[in-house]
Amino acid sequence: MHVIVDFTVVPVGTGVSLSRYIAVCEQVLEARGLTHQLHANGTNVEGEWDEVFAAIRDCHERLHQMGVPRIHTDIKLGTRIDREQHMTDKVASVQKKLADR
Amino acid sequence: MHVIVDFTVVPVGTGVSLSRYIAVCEQVLEARGLTHQLHANGTNVEGEWDEVFAAIRDCHERLHQMGVPRIHTDIKLGTRIDREQHMTDKVASVQKKLADR
Amino acid sequence: MHVIVDFTVVPVGTGVSLSRYIAVCEQVLEARGLTHQLHANGTNVEGEWDEVFAAIRDCHERLHQMGVPRIHTDIKLGTRIDREQHMTDKVASVQKKLADR
Amino acid sequence: MHVIVDFTVVPVGTGVSLSRYIAVCEQVLEARGLTHQLHANGTNVEGEWDEVFAAIRDCHERLHQMGVPRIHTDIKLGTRIDREQHMTDKVASVQKKLADR
Repeated sequence: MHVIVDFTVVPVGTGVSLSRYIAVCEQVLEARGLTHQLHANGTNVEGEWDEVFAAIRDCHERLHQMGVPRIHTDIKLGTRIDREQHMTDKVASVQKKLADR
Repeated sequence: MHVIVDFTVVPVGTGVSLSRYIAVCEQVLEARGLTHQLHANGTNVEGEWDEVFAAIRDCHERLHQMGVPRIHTDIKLGTRIDREQHMTDKVASVQKKLADR
Repeated sequence: MHVIVDFTVVPVGTGVSLSRYIAVCEQVLEARGLTHQLHANGTNVEGEWDEVFAAIRDCHERLHQMGVPRIHTDIKLGTRIDREQHMTDKVASVQKKLADR
Repeated sequence: MHVIVDFTVVPVGTGVSLSRYIAVCEQVLEARGLTHQLHANGTNVEGEWDEVFAAIRDCHERLHQMGVPRIHTDIKLGTRIDREQHMTDKVASVQKKLADR
């Protein structure tokens, strides 16, 4: 099952600067060959369900190995069976509606 | 890796009444023997990472089989390595702080 | 506009133990007279849109005053115009579906 | 209080195609002069707390006026008092960490 995901990893108990942890998660996605896009409040990623969630688990494991004691993560995800859809389609579809007005 | 999760399944394109779909997801969790607790805006569940996410995937698959064309799901999750924690501990810990005031 | 909300406040950069901060937010909701219910991964609250979001802002302000440098918060919310609904209705509706099976 | 927000509006009970509703919300943000950025799973926006949440409420009201019976929305937000931060800073900070490796 194909899934489009947005996730935000929030390391807790390790200071206010979180970007180096986010960078580790970006590298996990890159190493696993998943299509992904960083944005200001999270990362979009798409792929097969099991591969995407294994990547997020891997991210958690690496951060804990780096000494992060606690991690809070948010995930928003979508699946659909009416048609195939990719991340780029979603932005393009809204932009087309805006251009048509 | 143990994980405590809150998730909300939002079937899209299938009418405004969603409770029968939520009930199917509750049954999935029950059948899989995962500790879970329904609340007004989602369901709390805890267990091993792979088991919890397999259950949520199973829920998506069943709803799609029932004809739901599109599903949006939110997940909030926590992992920690500083100590063992369960769902009931989290509520009890806040309630103790409130009682101590 | 009536809104049913689930929110989770995650103080960042202030240690791994967060329950005393959650307790402060519970007191804010209580003092403002909003219907609310703590659960393992957040708090459900309902009321008028502006009142609910003013309460969450108040919670942020108090935690910052306590010295929390950074706060990440998740909110899930629902509004509907087809019928009136309250938090207790949502749980009861799913439980009825489960009982009918 | 300055806030950086990511939000996703999910109209329920109105078909599977949601992009025209997302476009309305983009126009609300634009009309209100808020800094915003659409991505594959939501929209990032920043500004004063009350202005940002008034904009999201406005989006809900407009969609209900268009006939959407029910709306589920996710919001992730961050506030901080240790330093000023904007949306573009957050992406740049992670990218710098990636470039330094």
